[in-house]
Amino acid sequence: MSTFLPPLFPSYQAACELCREAGGALVFQSASWRVIRAADASFPAFYRVVWRAHVSEWSDLSLAEQAVLMGVVGAVERVLRDALAPTKINLASLGNVVAHLHWHVIARFDWDSHFPAPVWAGAAREVAPPAVERLAIGLDELDARVARAVGALAPGG
Amino acid sequence: MSTFLPPLFPSYQAACELCREAGGALVFQSASWRVIRAADASFPAFYRVVWRAHVSEWSDLSLAEQAVLMGVVGAVERVLRDALAPTKINLASLGNVVAHLHWHVIARFDWDSHFPAPVWAGAAREVAPPAVERLAIGLDELDARVARAVGALAPGG
Repeated sequence: MSTFLPPLFPSYQAACELCREAGGALVFQSASWRVIRAADASFPAFYRVVWRAHVSEWSDLSLAEQAVLMGVVGAVERVLRDALAPTKINLASLGNVVAHLHWHVIARFDWDSHFPAPVWAGAAREVAPPAVERLAIGLDELDARVARAVGALAPGG
Repeated sequence: MSTFLPPLFPSYQAACELCREAGGALVFQSASWRVIRAADASFPAFYRVVWRAHVSEWSDLSLAEQAVLMGVVGAVERVLRDALAPTKINLASLGNVVAHLHWHVIARFDWDSHFPAPVWAGAAREVAPPAVERLAIGLDELDARVARAVGALAPGG
């Protein structure tokens, strides 16, 4: 369950980074999606929910698939809210560079380097001590809580 | 159906811009959500799907409410794809400044001012003629198509 499974033929695309690699620290993988944690020092509580098959757009999924994927996004969000009490959760599916459907789920804090701007804008301030040291719990524990929450949504648990 | 309906008590918050105002050109309003078009010269095909009640986070909605809202987001996305054949659709729910649940649905083009960066990053180029003139159809027609598509999802049409 913690092994990266690339998409199966016929959706696999060799040129796509998210078909070839997990794309971050693998937190949990089911048969149709995975959760990874991005390595971002400014935003340590930054997860991505990646659809396993190579599709570009949200509306490429069926309504049933959308419900599955957004259920996982919601579960990650809920863990971040419960564990970290962030100022805000940011969700986004952009994919302009890597057009393989994935959702960003990011815990934002009023003290973080960019707040209230989006993480893709310019930084507003320097943060010291480092952001990761200001989280209520460590990333290993956070990953474990995320894995438990989303694992409960995976067929076969 | 094209009249802005503020949230009902008890969720109404006078300090919230999206409780007091539509937040853009009102395209369609149902009893629980509305679709507006932002006024953004760089990204003319930029819609927002706003939940009528004042809630901050995606996970504040029930699963049934999430399905309703994402159905509307998906319908807007599908109209933009069919009408404009954009390079990519960008979806986001941020709310760091206005913490009233709303989804951005933005048609992106490889020629637009910021592509492939997110719209919240810095511009990469100047665009001439203006972006709106490069869309396959006009904004009035686009609004009408969006209104028809999302109107079909509203109870009572």
